[in-house]
Amino acid sequence: MKILLTIAYVGTNYQGYQLQKDKPTVALMLNNAVKNAFGIECNVTGCSRTDSGVHALGYCATVEPKNSDDKITVPIEKIPLVLNLALPSDISVICAKYVSDDFHARYDVQKKEYVYKIHASTIRDPFLDKRVLEYGKEISDEKFKKMQKAASFYVGTHRFTSFMSAGSKIENTERTVYESYLTRDGENVEFHILANGFLYNMVRIMVGTLLDVEKGKIDENSIPDIISAENRSVAGSTAKADGLYLQKIFYFDS
Amino acid sequence: MKILLTIAYVGTNYQGYQLQKDKPTVALMLNNAVKNAFGIECNVTGCSRTDSGVHALGYCATVEPKNSDDKITVPIEKIPLVLNLALPSDISVICAKYVSDDFHARYDVQKKEYVYKIHASTIRDPFLDKRVLEYGKEISDEKFKKMQKAASFYVGTHRFTSFMSAGSKIENTERTVYESYLTRDGENVEFHILANGFLYNMVRIMVGTLLDVEKGKIDENSIPDIISAENRSVAGSTAKADGLYLQKIFYFDS
Repeated sequence: MKILLTIAYVGTNYQGYQLQKDKPTVALMLNNAVKNAFGIECNVTGCSRTDSGVHALGYCATVEPKNSDDKITVPIEKIPLVLNLALPSDISVICAKYVSDDFHARYDVQKKEYVYKIHASTIRDPFLDKRVLEYGKEISDEKFKKMQKAASFYVGTHRFTSFMSAGSKIENTERTVYESYLTRDGENVEFHILANGFLYNMVRIMVGTLLDVEKGKIDENSIPDIISAENRSVAGSTAKADGLYLQKIFYFDS
Repeated sequence: MKILLTIAYVGTNYQGYQLQKDKPTVALMLNNAVKNAFGIECNVTGCSRTDSGVHALGYCATVEPKNSDDKITVPIEKIPLVLNLALPSDISVICAKYVSDDFHARYDVQKKEYVYKIHASTIRDPFLDKRVLEYGKEISDEKFKKMQKAASFYVGTHRFTSFMSAGSKIENTERTVYESYLTRDGENVEFHILANGFLYNMVRIMVGTLLDVEKGKIDENSIPDIISAENRSVAGSTAKADGLYLQKIFYFDS
């Protein structure tokens, strides 16, 4: 028996999702909660790494008993409630469903959607503290249109080497971006991106580049050149983790 | 020269607004920021006490030099920015304007508006942690209508003794409630109340009473009797501080 959990969390207090020795991580909290709530040893498999401070609205992870003789006896519809009692209040299981035993939380990912939130105002909003990039100024309609134009160039199948932080060991940097666009609601700007996968810091570098378009440092029409340069140094800086949300995971079978 | 500040803050990390010895309070942070930003001793006067953990979207406070020979030299339009650099990121000055020297932040309050936020869902939202009352279940339309009916009885001029926590030394418990209603947007329920003043814990007890109506412990039509009983024990429990927001202060002169 394998169960797929959908999880939301505020990433501020965690060093990302994946387990790290002696550090608070979402996976550590989830492993502990599963053990306490189900009373048996389980394997917990996450869909993705996330950076320290990054948030999630729709993270996915599977849970299954380590020993095939063991069973999770909590009824499926009660699992979110039971796990949430065992989890800290900045992590919440929002949904649980059975999946087949050969389902894999990471390998079966078809598409991932991220959202990056920017608060474009001279006056910071304390309720958005650590949950957005506080840009410190307004973004004009004209600049917003340029950013929108720039974002549209991310769509397609490209080697996104220019948008990958140094230190990544990934060799195949080709990814397919299906959607890439900005929305705005007053001072709140959101960058949405849907792709079959992401390189290390890819979304944050894409956002840093869009903000360089806003600042006039990068021309909105030069994005194709930046992509084809396959050189990290020609793209913008890496926007901070605070504004990044893993929005949704799409699986092949769902 | 006297300056009126409008301030938003997340109350979670503070023991309320007002200064308390050796405790973190919003007033302490504001006093320190004013001193650091303006470089002179100032009197800071808040519009109201707030309970530990209560939030504010439109708190008001005045600032004026202690010594009448001193001047605040920062241009008025720069004051929010300058103070925000000196304040922690969970407090933000959103507006500053000059007021007359005889203006008083507390005595000149005409009306105050509070909002109380309830998340009515079996699944908690980690992004609302400490920012709402997590009710732990949904509220049906039928129950919501009963709560709405109950809330409507709060409107008017009454002695709200039943809605005042024991320990308050206030003798005149008469207050005028101008508006009292609930709104809902899916799982998010808000109680709005506008009055010429509030007794100790008044909004939180009003909310606790509305939730007792939801639970069927209190009949929605018994609110007038609860008010006229002038007895704290007949009203509902005091809802936790987490969901309470000081929304707006209305002054006589504005």
